Amino acid sequence: MKQITSIQNPYIKQLVQLQDKAKARKQSGTFLIEGQREIMLATKGGYEIETVLFVPELLSEVEVRQLAGRTAEYIEISKEIYQKLAYRDTTEGVIAVAKSKELSLGTLQLGKNPLVVVAEAPEKPGNIGALLRTADAAGVDAVIIANPKGDLYNPNIIRSSVGCLFTNNIATGATEEVIDYLKSNAINIYCATLQNSTSYHVQDYTLPTALVVGTEATGLTQEWRDAAKQNIIIPMHGEIDSMNVSVAAAILIFEAKRQRGFNL
Amino acid sequence: MKQITSIQNPYIKQLVQLQDKAKARKQSGTFLIEGQREIMLATKGGYEIETVLFVPELLSEVEVRQLAGRTAEYIEISKEIYQKLAYRDTTEGVIAVAKSKELSLGTLQLGKNPLVVVAEAPEKPGNIGALLRTADAAGVDAVIIANPKGDLYNPNIIRSSVGCLFTNNIATGATEEVIDYLKSNAINIYCATLQNSTSYHVQDYTLPTALVVGTEATGLTQEWRDAAKQNIIIPMHGEIDSMNVSVAAAILIFEAKRQRGFNL
Repeated sequence: MKQITSIQNPYIKQLVQLQDKAKARKQSGTFLIEGQREIMLATKGGYEIETVLFVPELLSEVEVRQLAGRTAEYIEISKEIYQKLAYRDTTEGVIAVAKSKELSLGTLQLGKNPLVVVAEAPEKPGNIGALLRTADAAGVDAVIIANPKGDLYNPNIIRSSVGCLFTNNIATGATEEVIDYLKSNAINIYCATLQNSTSYHVQDYTLPTALVVGTEATGLTQEWRDAAKQNIIIPMHGEIDSMNVSVAAAILIFEAKRQRGFNL
Repeated sequence: MKQITSIQNPYIKQLVQLQDKAKARKQSGTFLIEGQREIMLATKGGYEIETVLFVPELLSEVEVRQLAGRTAEYIEISKEIYQKLAYRDTTEGVIAVAKSKELSLGTLQLGKNPLVVVAEAPEKPGNIGALLRTADAAGVDAVIIANPKGDLYNPNIIRSSVGCLFTNNIATGATEEVIDYLKSNAINIYCATLQNSTSYHVQDYTLPTALVVGTEATGLTQEWRDAAKQNIIIPMHGEIDSMNVSVAAAILIFEAKRQRGFNL
């Protein structure tokens, strides 16, 4: 088996770029995944793993080979290299190079009565990760990021999603494309926005539904409000008249699930 | 007005300890609050502000004096001192020294049909902050932290709660005390835990209700399960069979609010 022990190794330097820079991820069409569970979920989610780098003092070859199958290349690395590559402060000792997916709307496969979550231009990787985690738990048909601010293979998104970046059906697209996509699939659009809104809990989400949330700072763009079947709000009674976007999305998603009896 | 310009000033060194160490907060009975909004919310929430330190290049004396009233002492500080004191990476330029509250169960004032949220031994300040923010938005009667792992005046809790630490009715207590308190107030206890549970959405939360959540890692202690009127779960359909504790709490809280028609 191949071994790398020098942190000056050019391949390792290249991988550090993948962790740090969206541009490097885009140009190479690859990104890094840390941790056994995350790599396993990526494999399960149909991601092609090119290479698995692991620290033999921390994981056995047998354990590591279960994560990504036969087609991946396996490389032993030193703890020092692992620490240089790892984004998280863990001692899991395994990191993989995976091929990015296209994440286009055309690749989404929806059920007969889809429940879709759309987030427009979310800024904080932690919020995107939290949303993906909730979407996985709810088993929604798809998560769509409209007008994305960056690529989804950001290590902080992978981390905060606890691997749910790989378990959800995900697509990205410009807001106009996403609206066209939803309309052409006869999906009712409910926008979480103040203007001309009713309380979220009096709407019916048992038909094909897209729940659309914007950022805390700027909300949704006018295109979404124009496209909405109904604008909805979560009634608030506190001093602080706002809610974390991933929390708001969770409340909406689980109200839809509740109305669907947790079956659809 | 008093001015402090040396970062070697012993009072400033003392304040740095308040930011860094729970022990220093406990011994002095004081803590620090950063930011205009947070200080204003603390004043509104009945916290006594001892001192307001501000950078005159960033805020005017008039602005600052609106935050904490006449009884507080106002001190001008240099930007360098502000940066030493500030936990957050902002340039708000104002930080206050406030007196801690006792946060005992006896101080809570409940409405006629209370909705209470209990979190047992939450570990991450970010989760506690997020929970407090949701609780504020929902306008629950009280948030109780059972078996707290640390003090609530941790700067990271204040930050992540966006000041909702000061807007909620909050108490802490040992789990046994909290259970006694809820029972003596005839509040029905619903525990978010797997054992002998039913789906959360088939329970009735329109009577006096406490929603109790544990940590993601260890869940709730046996005492809570024994005290529960009913154990409840949120049905999950994903690959990852867990949910962020503050997200789970939000789903439960807003289901209770929905059942109460957002009026109670």
